[in-house]
Amino acid sequence: MAKIVCVLYEDPVTGYPRTYARGDIPQIERYPGGQTTPTPKSIDFRPGQLLGSVSGELGLRKFLESQGHTLVVTADKDGANSVFEKELVDANIVISQPFWPAYLTAERIAKARKLQLAITAGIGSDHVDLQAAMERGMTVAEVTYCNSISVSEHVVMMILALVRNYLPSHQWVVDRGWNIADCVARSYDLEGMNVGTVAAGRIGTAVLRRLKPFDVKLHYTDRHRLPEAIEKELDLTFHPTTESLVRVCDVVTINAPLHPETEGLFNDALIAKMKRGAYLVNTARGKICDRDAVVRALKSGQLAGYAGDVWFPQPAPRDHPWRTMPFEAMTPHISGSSLSAQARYAAGVREILECWFEGKPIRDEYLIVQGGKLAGAGAHSYSAGDATRGSEEAARFKTTTRAPDTTHR
Amino acid sequence: MAKIVCVLYEDPVTGYPRTYARGDIPQIERYPGGQTTPTPKSIDFRPGQLLGSVSGELGLRKFLESQGHTLVVTADKDGANSVFEKELVDANIVISQPFWPAYLTAERIAKARKLQLAITAGIGSDHVDLQAAMERGMTVAEVTYCNSISVSEHVVMMILALVRNYLPSHQWVVDRGWNIADCVARSYDLEGMNVGTVAAGRIGTAVLRRLKPFDVKLHYTDRHRLPEAIEKELDLTFHPTTESLVRVCDVVTINAPLHPETEGLFNDALIAKMKRGAYLVNTARGKICDRDAVVRALKSGQLAGYAGDVWFPQPAPRDHPWRTMPFEAMTPHISGSSLSAQARYAAGVREILECWFEGKPIRDEYLIVQGGKLAGAGAHSYSAGDATRGSEEAARFKTTTRAPDTTHR
Repeated sequence: MAKIVCVLYEDPVTGYPRTYARGDIPQIERYPGGQTTPTPKSIDFRPGQLLGSVSGELGLRKFLESQGHTLVVTADKDGANSVFEKELVDANIVISQPFWPAYLTAERIAKARKLQLAITAGIGSDHVDLQAAMERGMTVAEVTYCNSISVSEHVVMMILALVRNYLPSHQWVVDRGWNIADCVARSYDLEGMNVGTVAAGRIGTAVLRRLKPFDVKLHYTDRHRLPEAIEKELDLTFHPTTESLVRVCDVVTINAPLHPETEGLFNDALIAKMKRGAYLVNTARGKICDRDAVVRALKSGQLAGYAGDVWFPQPAPRDHPWRTMPFEAMTPHISGSSLSAQARYAAGVREILECWFEGKPIRDEYLIVQGGKLAGAGAHSYSAGDATRGSEEAARFKTTTRAPDTTHR
Repeated sequence: MAKIVCVLYEDPVTGYPRTYARGDIPQIERYPGGQTTPTPKSIDFRPGQLLGSVSGELGLRKFLESQGHTLVVTADKDGANSVFEKELVDANIVISQPFWPAYLTAERIAKARKLQLAITAGIGSDHVDLQAAMERGMTVAEVTYCNSISVSEHVVMMILALVRNYLPSHQWVVDRGWNIADCVARSYDLEGMNVGTVAAGRIGTAVLRRLKPFDVKLHYTDRHRLPEAIEKELDLTFHPTTESLVRVCDVVTINAPLHPETEGLFNDALIAKMKRGAYLVNTARGKICDRDAVVRALKSGQLAGYAGDVWFPQPAPRDHPWRTMPFEAMTPHISGSSLSAQARYAAGVREILECWFEGKPIRDEYLIVQGGKLAGAGAHSYSAGDATRGSEEAARFKTTTRAPDTTHR
């Protein structure tokens, strides 16, 4: 019988609405390209429920306990005294999320001597030291495609919000004013702009596809060139390097995984090569952008706006400069955790666990690390090495991440 | 020599940025379908400048004064003592905007005995009593298509913002918190939803086209059925009535002009027929929705969200309930006044004035009223009658429309 430690984000302090905004969510059976959505034997939740938080438990408790397994669910993930660090010692399986990352560093993997399987309830396993996982012979799996479309929608929304100056304009509504000139002095149409994605995997391609009818000029760079048919269909310009892409783009969206080659990619030097007044949207991983370089560029006007939902560390400390820099339009890390996405990644985790317990192979597209090397989706997207460095920073902020007015919202 | 009275929105009290966010705007030469953007003989402004406000003067002063005409520009538009009402008495031409509407009621038209031409610097001439204009034999013209794409971008942005719960999630960033569960408990993917537009003219069709790759099911209702080729291309479901459309849609966007048939269309009765938890986006005209019915529906949960940028009257009074109702994601009336749109409507007004002074015909597609009847674009989109009723309300609020913190922004 296995012990499963599941680290999920906290529940709202004031309770989420008892009645959901909507009674159901659209049913999706296949992703673009034909891959089926997760196919567990059954589920114990209603799609549309809050599943990604501690109270939601990914809908797994009944399934696991009925088979005699032990499930520990916690949001307390950072520091040596955290529930996660203590429970890890005899855990067989860890389930965690990019939104509220339980950083699985080499040190923690060394302590977790029984750990064989790390599942990411979502996409992006950079919070796991993949190098250490390979050396240990662990399996690392994620629910590939479960929230790619979710994120691509967030990207398009944020591009429009930056270009059209949405958030400061909404603020005039809240402030009971009516200053159109102030709203529009930074408001543009997206039409006709050059928009480029750094990486054109599932998310990047979905973003390009959604932007096509906006009559923009589309660009991409990637390790792997897209099929010619897609390049033609979307009228894409391929760039061999990120530098070449950013020189011509009014809007740049980052849709690459975090690994040693992308860590710190958008630093002062690269941002200086962008068009003055460009917009940058990063829903990939916070560490791909140099935190302070972004702030400097917004203050100087080199960047006209920055949006995205990824930070480092997560939760972002109260004094993270991206909270207060000008022309930001960010959210906490939520783009891949809509109720729609939660239903898919909860089902995907269940599918992976069912396979694991029955000794059946996990879908190849879900595998990141297996048998001591990058595998499946991991071999396509990741580099060997480790991008978890610095995650101990998270512990320093762990007790100070709530809004002061949390209880009044 | 003519006297031209031009009513434009106020400039920001604190001054807009001396350096614009961007150095240029993309050049657009044709709209979808082939209509050319405005073709004045020349312009005296740089596209990308703030033109729509009092200080911008639509870039017209040099042109008009060099020909000996008199130009009066003001933002003071409401009430009997306003600059507009006083200057109107001997004006030959009035230029006004939907964003900051100078309501040209039957009473004002009666007072303005020399008035022959009313130009809307934008699209939507419902702030002009078209019935009175027809009876007077005036010409009413607007810059058809100048900001249709601008508005369609705003609509897609707002649909995504409502469905994904963007604004409340951004607020957590500002409030220095990190409450993912609170953000996502009302966050959905758009994918798979049923989205419908009330009217499928230039804006409505552009919205449908932009939404197509989001893998939604698209619906529309309109007086005029779209060509079968477009219905097939976008896989549209036509509804003979608005009621039929709203019954099946998760998201409804209103893209109809305001005229007596659309005024008050979304009242308690129609909203009750919508799906529970639907989203409503209205960038058309505030009066198409019953103000208090919208508030009631948001409070009861019948509507999951409301966005848009149109209000009645405009500027919206400080105590307008749409400022404080739950689940709103509104802006002041700005969607059609991006810097990109301003360049086009300023050029279009110039084109119309050039034609007028030279005795050449104004483009048919710009005409709303001519020779005592609805003409050109007007005959397609408007009904005879008047939708300016109640505009005297605006005067009651004229001194109280600024945010209390205006000087600190």
